[in-house]
Amino acid sequence: MENRKEVYFDNSATTRVFDSVRDVMVEAMTSDYGNTSSRHMKGVEAERYIREAREEIAGSLKVKEKEIVFTSGGTESNNMALIGAAMAARRKGNHLITTCIEHASVYNTMSFLEEQGFRITYLPVDQDGIVSLDALREAICDDTILVSIMYVNNEMGAVEPVAEIGKLIKSIRPDIYFHVDAIQAYGKYVIRPKKEGIDLMSVSGHKIHGPKGVGFLYVDEKVRIRPIIFGGGQQKGMRSGTENVPGCAGLGMAVREIYKDHDERVERLYALKDRLVQGLSSLEGVTVHGRTGRDSAPQIVSAGFEGVRAEVLLHALEDRGIYVSSGSACSSNHPGVSGTLRGIGVRESLLDSTLRFSFGVFNTEDEVDYCLEVLRELLPVLRRYRRA
Amino acid sequence: MENRKEVYFDNSATTRVFDSVRDVMVEAMTSDYGNTSSRHMKGVEAERYIREAREEIAGSLKVKEKEIVFTSGGTESNNMALIGAAMAARRKGNHLITTCIEHASVYNTMSFLEEQGFRITYLPVDQDGIVSLDALREAICDDTILVSIMYVNNEMGAVEPVAEIGKLIKSIRPDIYFHVDAIQAYGKYVIRPKKEGIDLMSVSGHKIHGPKGVGFLYVDEKVRIRPIIFGGGQQKGMRSGTENVPGCAGLGMAVREIYKDHDERVERLYALKDRLVQGLSSLEGVTVHGRTGRDSAPQIVSAGFEGVRAEVLLHALEDRGIYVSSGSACSSNHPGVSGTLRGIGVRESLLDSTLRFSFGVFNTEDEVDYCLEVLRELLPVLRRYRRA
Repeated sequence: MENRKEVYFDNSATTRVFDSVRDVMVEAMTSDYGNTSSRHMKGVEAERYIREAREEIAGSLKVKEKEIVFTSGGTESNNMALIGAAMAARRKGNHLITTCIEHASVYNTMSFLEEQGFRITYLPVDQDGIVSLDALREAICDDTILVSIMYVNNEMGAVEPVAEIGKLIKSIRPDIYFHVDAIQAYGKYVIRPKKEGIDLMSVSGHKIHGPKGVGFLYVDEKVRIRPIIFGGGQQKGMRSGTENVPGCAGLGMAVREIYKDHDERVERLYALKDRLVQGLSSLEGVTVHGRTGRDSAPQIVSAGFEGVRAEVLLHALEDRGIYVSSGSACSSNHPGVSGTLRGIGVRESLLDSTLRFSFGVFNTEDEVDYCLEVLRELLPVLRRYRRA
Repeated sequence: MENRKEVYFDNSATTRVFDSVRDVMVEAMTSDYGNTSSRHMKGVEAERYIREAREEIAGSLKVKEKEIVFTSGGTESNNMALIGAAMAARRKGNHLITTCIEHASVYNTMSFLEEQGFRITYLPVDQDGIVSLDALREAICDDTILVSIMYVNNEMGAVEPVAEIGKLIKSIRPDIYFHVDAIQAYGKYVIRPKKEGIDLMSVSGHKIHGPKGVGFLYVDEKVRIRPIIFGGGQQKGMRSGTENVPGCAGLGMAVREIYKDHDERVERLYALKDRLVQGLSSLEGVTVHGRTGRDSAPQIVSAGFEGVRAEVLLHALEDRGIYVSSGSACSSNHPGVSGTLRGIGVRESLLDSTLRFSFGVFNTEDEVDYCLEVLRELLPVLRRYRRA
């Protein structure tokens, strides 16, 4: 990278780990490297890492430690929640409800379940990406077994009214499971599953400056799900496979860091967001999608740039050391056009001209100013080229 | 650990990572921490780590890079191979064949498939843990779609005649898939799936001084399997989820290390094994299970200690800084008695008196001598207590 300025605004794709995360992982890989299933001290040491991580996570949600299942990441958590719950509750019904703006790991898992004979209702959202409680109320049937709705949309930062949704579902039928994909929300919000009616909740490590390849699923103790991976019976049979001790330890450490001075961290993110949104709004032909400020997630800004292709602008920014995303990085091997942007009714001319800027704990106001300065310079040039 | 001697002879449970593995993982977590799906340079850098790891692995097996799918570890690899192949080939038949000494991640996945309507045949093994080709030949039916047999048994180091099995299966019906759980074999043997008739092969990182939480499945390009985890379509749709870049990079590095000076490394393991086996054989009331020497895996010694409970001996050794395993660590949260030891017909009095010693690249002959010295001292004492 030499002396080149580097501004990483793609934290909703993935993040750099905290130094403390790196340190605990190195320790668990080189010194305390045991297998938790081993019955000697090296196994006991390894088990301690897992237990401490589980305590940290459970504490952050005010749930029980036994309600936390470690997985290989957010995608597996979502798969485990949906397939696991659907298969276990199959005798009760075969109807599942979700929204049209879910992440691919929910959306494509729902498609798989549809092939397996389940019936899926996809709720629409309004122009801000918010799901309607009325639509949800109407969709719930006698054979509905699960509702899955994301907490924060990964592409434009819309925040769903999760607590209200939980309340609504439970008021209609308490035995309907409520799954929340909180992958973009955990670490940004203080979440209380027990108060919000959440039965299952997915989280990923690498979105909160923790490691890749690890995440967790919160499973309320009253919920029965069928495992999706079978083997040695680790984690009480919920998820077999030698525990990823360094990964779990790193995740636990990231949770500790991210919820330490939580309010202050979130304030800093909103300050960055406000600064960027204000700057973008002052530029000609730029539309910020969805709500902003406290009505939206602190770390995500989605904006359409009239007359400029997202791909071109992304690479022009990259040349100046600024890394952003076009659409959601999580599935951008298959570009296509974002389901979320269509879902919120972004007009055709902006669908292919939208970038996502996403912040993490290492970003600064100077970086936002630099980004705005570069955009101010680039946009007229790129539009001129386009017209030529 | 202060000045206490520490002898880790539980390398078949898990291993300490190579320093080079730690280093590349730290690099991929703190500097090149991108998401491979991101379309800017940070994503390209991350993709490079994945590509290099895939090249390293494919090279070690002389297979194509696209035939390597990264997973969260050996358990997921086995699940993906069995469930993925069985579900994809369901229209061709519903009969699966395996052995009675497989690891729980094969055994319990087979049980799941049985619940799903598949018929499973469990082949017996002889007193050395070796499956009979005749029994396999007889078991294969018109509706057989897959045979799954481990390469090296994790509990006592028996080596199955994989190449002969592959040849036999393909001579009967080339369209029957042959899956090999090579989790204890890879890194100890030079494996050539294309020559040995192997269609699917599972490997785990943390058994070869690589990271926990990562492994791979070799999938011959002609084999069609259904994914078991759905989402963003990473890895050509075979295994969705943000790639665990540090984990894959660490695995690639471990493969490079373990197959560098491979013959020499294996010779060193056999020297340790021969030394331990010889020493054990000179002790009264000690039986080494199965074959030894070049007819067995280089890293595993399983021995029964007449008149001593495994659990007691394990902790007595632990008090002297020596870490070993009773049965297989991979599922020892559920002790019970080993299926493998019963499978090979170990006599009742030794079932609960068997320890596994397993070597890794960091072990030395001095450690073997120390272990033998401690055993020589402990065994009479423990037997006396037992009688008292």
